[in-house]
Amino acid sequence: MLNFGLTEMRLVAPRDGWPNPDAGPAASGADIVLEKAQVFDTLAKAVADISHVYATTVRKRGVTKPVVTPAEASAEIFAAASAAPPVRSAILFGAERSGLEMDEVATARSIITVPINPEFGSLNLAQAVILCAYEWSKHQSLASPPKVDLDPPAPQSELDGLIDHLFGQLEARRYFFPPERMAATKQTLRNLLTKPGWNSLEIRTLRGVLSSFDKRHRIPD
Amino acid sequence: MLNFGLTEMRLVAPRDGWPNPDAGPAASGADIVLEKAQVFDTLAKAVADISHVYATTVRKRGVTKPVVTPAEASAEIFAAASAAPPVRSAILFGAERSGLEMDEVATARSIITVPINPEFGSLNLAQAVILCAYEWSKHQSLASPPKVDLDPPAPQSELDGLIDHLFGQLEARRYFFPPERMAATKQTLRNLLTKPGWNSLEIRTLRGVLSSFDKRHRIPD
Repeated sequence: MLNFGLTEMRLVAPRDGWPNPDAGPAASGADIVLEKAQVFDTLAKAVADISHVYATTVRKRGVTKPVVTPAEASAEIFAAASAAPPVRSAILFGAERSGLEMDEVATARSIITVPINPEFGSLNLAQAVILCAYEWSKHQSLASPPKVDLDPPAPQSELDGLIDHLFGQLEARRYFFPPERMAATKQTLRNLLTKPGWNSLEIRTLRGVLSSFDKRHRIPD
Repeated sequence: MLNFGLTEMRLVAPRDGWPNPDAGPAASGADIVLEKAQVFDTLAKAVADISHVYATTVRKRGVTKPVVTPAEASAEIFAAASAAPPVRSAILFGAERSGLEMDEVATARSIITVPINPEFGSLNLAQAVILCAYEWSKHQSLASPPKVDLDPPAPQSELDGLIDHLFGQLEARRYFFPPERMAATKQTLRNLLTKPGWNSLEIRTLRGVLSSFDKRHRIPD
């Protein structure tokens, strides 16, 4: 939950009571979620202030509710939260082994089902939670994609410097043969060297590589 | 992996050897993935036939590669696989505790980083894998959203039948008072009852509810 910016967890009649000493280590440092957790003895009390409850379940027998994907639910939840006045939503998860009972699903206005391999579906509780939290986070500013600190490609003049350097070396080594194919070969090389979009540092590194070919190195004994 | 239709796992120099007796129970029935797993002693051998390796990592120091989200990577992978000839991609994950080493990241053409809460990021290996597999599955036909077996709203005539039934009962009970407000009140009720989009079965159920009010019931002692 906290990985994706969610901190409001509500527990309904937890089997092992609350606080649960096993929860801390499992939370891997997300203690704030545990500290803020609210405990209710019934589902009705837990969702009393929620306008749109989503139930996560794969069982659809006899259910007459819209079934949405985590992505669709997240878009709805975000739109509802952005409305004036804002509409609060909650995602309801069942117990690890049994999932949600039908009377719990009846509390919900919509059902969330993760699209899954039709020949093998075995999502556990933690997996269902992380997928819903992940999709929810896509609508939050805090989950903006990590900014790429990728240096931009070097100016063309630097690339040309590299290419001219290489061409000079190749000409000195009579690489271009026969002479009438020189233009085509140079074009092939220019295309190939333009493709990577090397940045200035990378171009300088490659110039250094080329320079090393210009020098006479003593081969170690 | 199998939840989202992925079956090709390649292991590089697994610490505890392979097969690993602990892997079976953890796979929760996805034995096909374990059976098909290929083991390589070096990363280079594992990705020898792959054209585009994605490395999953959050560490970006000194890295001059494109950084993409799982969603962006999945779109690229799908486009590459759909090209003619198809281009094979692989997603590289590091060990649970240490993640990928920089020389392993150097093998990759792109980096995948999951957008995450900037104040708390602690995705484990299983979480990173499921998010990548989930995003990949969105481009696969097998992951088409579960078809909603939601019955469509009943024809308007059935809804009108319900509304007329109710109005008749309410008139008999002199609910509409004062008379000059009857039209506005009926409009309010009609809007309210049109909103849910009840299907035929639900309309019939509600007709049964209304009918029960018509009958004289003996109140149990």
